[in-house]
Amino acid sequence: MNTAAQPRSTGTVPTTLVQHYRQVRAVTADLCRTLSPEDMTVQSMPDVSPSKWHLAHTTWFFERFLITEHLPGYRVFHPQFDYLFNSYYNTVGRMHPRPQRGLLSRPGVADILAYRQHVDNAMPVLLERATSDPDLAFLITLGLNHEQQHQELLLTDIKHVLSVNPLRPAWRELPSPAAGHAPELKYIPRAGGLMEIGHNGEGFAFDNESPRHRVFLEAHAITNRPVTNGEFLDFIRAGGYRIPELWLSDGWSMVQQRGWDRPLYWNPELDAEFALDGMRELDAAAPVTHVSYYEADAFARWAGARLPTEAEWETLASEQSMQGNFMEQGHYHPIAASAASSGAYQLYGDVWEWTMSAYTSYPGFKPLVGSLGEYNGKFMSSQMVLRGGSCVTPQSHIRSTYRNFFPPDARWQFSGLRLARDA
Amino acid sequence: MNTAAQPRSTGTVPTTLVQHYRQVRAVTADLCRTLSPEDMTVQSMPDVSPSKWHLAHTTWFFERFLITEHLPGYRVFHPQFDYLFNSYYNTVGRMHPRPQRGLLSRPGVADILAYRQHVDNAMPVLLERATSDPDLAFLITLGLNHEQQHQELLLTDIKHVLSVNPLRPAWRELPSPAAGHAPELKYIPRAGGLMEIGHNGEGFAFDNESPRHRVFLEAHAITNRPVTNGEFLDFIRAGGYRIPELWLSDGWSMVQQRGWDRPLYWNPELDAEFALDGMRELDAAAPVTHVSYYEADAFARWAGARLPTEAEWETLASEQSMQGNFMEQGHYHPIAASAASSGAYQLYGDVWEWTMSAYTSYPGFKPLVGSLGEYNGKFMSSQMVLRGGSCVTPQSHIRSTYRNFFPPDARWQFSGLRLARDA
Amino acid sequence: MNTAAQPRSTGTVPTTLVQHYRQVRAVTADLCRTLSPEDMTVQSMPDVSPSKWHLAHTTWFFERFLITEHLPGYRVFHPQFDYLFNSYYNTVGRMHPRPQRGLLSRPGVADILAYRQHVDNAMPVLLERATSDPDLAFLITLGLNHEQQHQELLLTDIKHVLSVNPLRPAWRELPSPAAGHAPELKYIPRAGGLMEIGHNGEGFAFDNESPRHRVFLEAHAITNRPVTNGEFLDFIRAGGYRIPELWLSDGWSMVQQRGWDRPLYWNPELDAEFALDGMRELDAAAPVTHVSYYEADAFARWAGARLPTEAEWETLASEQSMQGNFMEQGHYHPIAASAASSGAYQLYGDVWEWTMSAYTSYPGFKPLVGSLGEYNGKFMSSQMVLRGGSCVTPQSHIRSTYRNFFPPDARWQFSGLRLARDA
Amino acid sequence: MNTAAQPRSTGTVPTTLVQHYRQVRAVTADLCRTLSPEDMTVQSMPDVSPSKWHLAHTTWFFERFLITEHLPGYRVFHPQFDYLFNSYYNTVGRMHPRPQRGLLSRPGVADILAYRQHVDNAMPVLLERATSDPDLAFLITLGLNHEQQHQELLLTDIKHVLSVNPLRPAWRELPSPAAGHAPELKYIPRAGGLMEIGHNGEGFAFDNESPRHRVFLEAHAITNRPVTNGEFLDFIRAGGYRIPELWLSDGWSMVQQRGWDRPLYWNPELDAEFALDGMRELDAAAPVTHVSYYEADAFARWAGARLPTEAEWETLASEQSMQGNFMEQGHYHPIAASAASSGAYQLYGDVWEWTMSAYTSYPGFKPLVGSLGEYNGKFMSSQMVLRGGSCVTPQSHIRSTYRNFFPPDARWQFSGLRLARDA
Repeated sequence: MNTAAQPRSTGTVPTTLVQHYRQVRAVTADLCRTLSPEDMTVQSMPDVSPSKWHLAHTTWFFERFLITEHLPGYRVFHPQFDYLFNSYYNTVGRMHPRPQRGLLSRPGVADILAYRQHVDNAMPVLLERATSDPDLAFLITLGLNHEQQHQELLLTDIKHVLSVNPLRPAWRELPSPAAGHAPELKYIPRAGGLMEIGHNGEGFAFDNESPRHRVFLEAHAITNRPVTNGEFLDFIRAGGYRIPELWLSDGWSMVQQRGWDRPLYWNPELDAEFALDGMRELDAAAPVTHVSYYEADAFARWAGARLPTEAEWETLASEQSMQGNFMEQGHYHPIAASAASSGAYQLYGDVWEWTMSAYTSYPGFKPLVGSLGEYNGKFMSSQMVLRGGSCVTPQSHIRSTYRNFFPPDARWQFSGLRLARDA
Repeated sequence: MNTAAQPRSTGTVPTTLVQHYRQVRAVTADLCRTLSPEDMTVQSMPDVSPSKWHLAHTTWFFERFLITEHLPGYRVFHPQFDYLFNSYYNTVGRMHPRPQRGLLSRPGVADILAYRQHVDNAMPVLLERATSDPDLAFLITLGLNHEQQHQELLLTDIKHVLSVNPLRPAWRELPSPAAGHAPELKYIPRAGGLMEIGHNGEGFAFDNESPRHRVFLEAHAITNRPVTNGEFLDFIRAGGYRIPELWLSDGWSMVQQRGWDRPLYWNPELDAEFALDGMRELDAAAPVTHVSYYEADAFARWAGARLPTEAEWETLASEQSMQGNFMEQGHYHPIAASAASSGAYQLYGDVWEWTMSAYTSYPGFKPLVGSLGEYNGKFMSSQMVLRGGSCVTPQSHIRSTYRNFFPPDARWQFSGLRLARDA
Repeated sequence: MNTAAQPRSTGTVPTTLVQHYRQVRAVTADLCRTLSPEDMTVQSMPDVSPSKWHLAHTTWFFERFLITEHLPGYRVFHPQFDYLFNSYYNTVGRMHPRPQRGLLSRPGVADILAYRQHVDNAMPVLLERATSDPDLAFLITLGLNHEQQHQELLLTDIKHVLSVNPLRPAWRELPSPAAGHAPELKYIPRAGGLMEIGHNGEGFAFDNESPRHRVFLEAHAITNRPVTNGEFLDFIRAGGYRIPELWLSDGWSMVQQRGWDRPLYWNPELDAEFALDGMRELDAAAPVTHVSYYEADAFARWAGARLPTEAEWETLASEQSMQGNFMEQGHYHPIAASAASSGAYQLYGDVWEWTMSAYTSYPGFKPLVGSLGEYNGKFMSSQMVLRGGSCVTPQSHIRSTYRNFFPPDARWQFSGLRLARDA
Repeated sequence: MNTAAQPRSTGTVPTTLVQHYRQVRAVTADLCRTLSPEDMTVQSMPDVSPSKWHLAHTTWFFERFLITEHLPGYRVFHPQFDYLFNSYYNTVGRMHPRPQRGLLSRPGVADILAYRQHVDNAMPVLLERATSDPDLAFLITLGLNHEQQHQELLLTDIKHVLSVNPLRPAWRELPSPAAGHAPELKYIPRAGGLMEIGHNGEGFAFDNESPRHRVFLEAHAITNRPVTNGEFLDFIRAGGYRIPELWLSDGWSMVQQRGWDRPLYWNPELDAEFALDGMRELDAAAPVTHVSYYEADAFARWAGARLPTEAEWETLASEQSMQGNFMEQGHYHPIAASAASSGAYQLYGDVWEWTMSAYTSYPGFKPLVGSLGEYNGKFMSSQMVLRGGSCVTPQSHIRSTYRNFFPPDARWQFSGLRLARDA
């Protein structure tokens, strides 16, 4: 892979990179601290990967795209791991089918931890070399951002694994947040005009956030906080899941085929939800989460509103300080605004916010060259953009230009919504 | 259904409306002239509807949304036709499942022709009244545009029905076009800036074309004609269907799951294709057609280009005169530019052109009120916009602002592509 | 195909064979008299074939296995009919996939009638030659029995086609049978011992009925008539479809997956059923029909009984005169014993009776040589034997040794049941 | 559950029952000795259960059908285990869906071992009481036979789990058998006549083996040993998997749908197979195994033979001493006759032998009363009988009357075949 032609800056001074590497790698392992080997083996649906697969794949990313390319003489830990732990890089070679990740009992957790150690042992020389090699520094930073993405996925995946078990086991005991009171819902008027969005090149960003470019926005309004559980309960009680004209056609098909009548993880009585510490009482003031794009869109229509575009979201968010209920806060669950965030808007953290923007390329988009060009660009069809990070996103991973994307029927991420309307 | 609040103009003077009604209705029936009752009964895949269903459904549209609403004392032709011939209007009531339309032998073709006559007999009084009732005139015009859409679908559907028959029967004998020579492929440079797209309210348009609004475009270039069969052959011979990095992730899955290795309807030898008059020799100079969005996108990437956005397409097309190889020309198949079109660009007619724009609402979009609000708006997810009409689109049905939309894996429409690139 | 080594007798004197040929062929055509081309095109599920396919396939059987083998110089009607109308003879060549028979609008009904005429025109010389060629006479007789089987299938298939239509159209107007009174249900004691079953070689029989052989039967009892609609209603009302311990494991899966709660064609109110003349009132005294093996078995368990074995059935039936409610009676529906049959037992006609015997080969079984060996033998797995013929079986087609077979979940045949128990 | 009315003898003197209990329970645990928690969690297809599920389910069988029924005051280990570890007893209550057993990471292996201990602790008082309570002794013996069945399934299931892993891990290191020479294949002539088969009531047997009853057999012949790998290779090389006329219709569909071209676990080069110790060289003299009924039947037809009926098999086997290559021999794989068995026929052990008999009830069959009546009887449709036990069957579990049964497409059991023919 030749990335030399790719001008960019990593935004990370070399000494920090070593520390960053150690810190990110340690966090990933720590997330598995309370999991048994059995927990770490199960794949509860094709979208979910076993925890031990996440541990191995993030390690493979460093081995494959950094070490074997830049460290002559390195011996790979196992010749078949290229097949087993390649996720979707067709240019690297064939890969184990994604829906069958849960069929692999070997390598076991202990073997995979040894694999992590093997790779960590090889990294110091590259981390040192990166102090004077910005391309290498970029690749390492990319690998760390990649691992942070998988920290979030590891948590959303293990949540799903535990949720399908009738015993409803907890991932970990968690603090009980104080009962919150959501701020009154208000629409913030926003002027239209020619705006700029996208990444400006300072610090790390994924290729899909660039280039920074102009967009014309009409005047509009956007709410001061996400929709809460209490508001979503009103939608349910008003028959929202039974009124076809509230739904996109594909969404209505999902409602009928899958029997959706409430967010994923809510109990049928609508008073509790499965969280990473097991079933807990539903907090009416906390942002609703684990809803699909279809549900977010239907709620908005019911509320006489719409979802914001990603440009509307980003121009607002770029004016806010980036704080919120992230992974580091230790809640691992959205919480009511008063407790969660000193910011006025909860734009960052808590829940990813569905936008009405389909995930597509910005004008002038250039994917990374080589295999890493498969990272983001090839998913630009039939997915919607989400913004702002969630309660399981590492804080150092997020920014106002960050574009997350999922298919409109996905519900197992911490996905919620904020309302907007035309002026 | 109350559409009174909906300001609009029909762009059709009353006397013309009567003539238009008669003409459109006659064309639909004429398209079936060479079909047997057996032909008109078959549904070859869920996306396809039987010809006789098209004849009935277009009639039901007038009966249900015009006559029963506006003609007191009218007796419906059959009490169960509301169930059988409702396509997707949930607010009207339950409907026969779409994939089972081909299981209905009754009503037969003769019964459905009687149904058409019954409804045609009721229309004159409403056509007369429409001369002084613009809401009524709008509804009639909408019904006629709806029927024109189904004329196109009737042709693409019967083409598919006949194509799955090993006997490869013809719909009709067609004229053999003279061998063409495609104009040399050139990129036309286009300046960027703040532009306007969308319908300006003069004459009929669908709700999804409005409102007219500003968009900011970067400078770009767009080709002077669609991609030809000959160019697509080059892509195939260069291994285009076997190189995963050319494809979107979902597209590559389709290639593998469905074994795609050429456009729908091409023979394995790549020298002939199924047309509405049976198998015919492939014309290298004619626009390639019956390709999915995924194939169009992969071709563009292979060619070092991309697909245009719908705004790029529309700003160009709005400068052209609207002529081309439409249904009325009687080719019922794309033909090479020299023969097909006096226009320089073949933007209109021949093939619908995939754009890279996901089908979504324009800022300020308002669906029609009532049941007819289900016409367009509820499909705004997971579909891509196509522009320009095709060789089976009635000429009076198309305009520069017209937005067609299909899922990215659809291939049975006359869909092709034009290339663009960043400046 | 060489059948010379196969000793058998046809039981048909030559002059009769000509008459038989004409009569059987005429009956098939007559069954379609009231059907439209549209009716004859539809395939409502993979098990069902379109009526026009039956007309063509039975003709192809004569063309392929008789005429092209025994009439030098014959020109086949159409070179692709071998592909289109071969049902399942792999040794003949590839064939059009069964589930796609309903996708073929061509050849149309008129073309297929011309095909029938073409083949009928070629037959007289072979019918004449058969007077002195017993092998040829056997093949013709086989072809006629084959066509009789398809007469029954044509009726059960068109019944299904019409039943899935919400309009519930009739195949034909039928006489209303007088209200019947089923005879009191009694168990007939039957002594055990060493018995003989199977065909004795006199007259035509299928290969799967031979050889005649000894079986040892325990003493048992068998009821004097089939189970009635009224008795089956009692089973339903007693919760029969909701009590898992009454059901075979696979049967209970079917009940749950398919939502079975009554025989196919009964209305939800349990007071009417779809018949070949449309919906008609349920006759409590008539034999229940359109039940699967699983339902028959569950009913028997609920009744403290079991189904008879095919040997128990045949030893009883061989003592009875072969009369009953067959196709020729013109009811095309099971009727109550008093009206249906002068025989005491209704063993023949009305409904095929599920036995508890899996369809397998008799000791010493030899399939026909050549392609016709595929006729029966290759279906000897996962199917159950049914006995006695039905209200749509031609009388001349049936005998006490006749073995019909269907998978245990099949319901669209006229299948019912009779009870038995150990002594 | 009341089994009092069920006359039977256990064939086990009380002191032996305690020892038997301890021995059987210890063997089950020992089979898992080399497995990791990850191995014991995976379910590689719906037919397979995770090892830890087998450990729990066999324990639940004792808890549910013995202890909670007969030991007042017993506290169940966990209130939800009735739901999690009920296999298919509908009369006991609802159960966790079989295809989702591999989604449960909890209870983990350690918890399940504690569950086993909890139940083992409760058993001594019942084992003591069984010395004077034959009904209780029968239930315990049934529970032990049940656990032995699951010992075999645990091995065939973990073999499948390991086989789908590209690393091809071993369950355990195993001894390499000496190269064998299969005895020359001979047909043993067998006289026909009125015979008796079925269990005579001495010692334990499952309900489906009774009652002993008469059957009439024609004279026939049966081979002196099972078909070997070498002979099956000949079949493959002769094109056996590509000749449709060798196959049952359903079998041919399987060949095409699933791409079968060799026994399960053979490598594509046809010279090695996956065994419980990983890939090993194919021994041409050893019995072929992991073939479906369809493959066994096709091989027999190719060889000019057929499969034996279960009565033919049993009357022969009842004359032989019951020794063979069972689980206790420690091969865990079929081996060539000279090494495997001092018996002349290899009827017992090595491979289960497909018979041509569909699994159905014997005349006079009575299932166990109560919930245990669901053990065998409800599977009497669409399955075929296999006889003789395999290399992973405990020797004390098998007898000449033993009836195993699987659907005709099952291949993951140690299933092979022996040939027969009509005299």
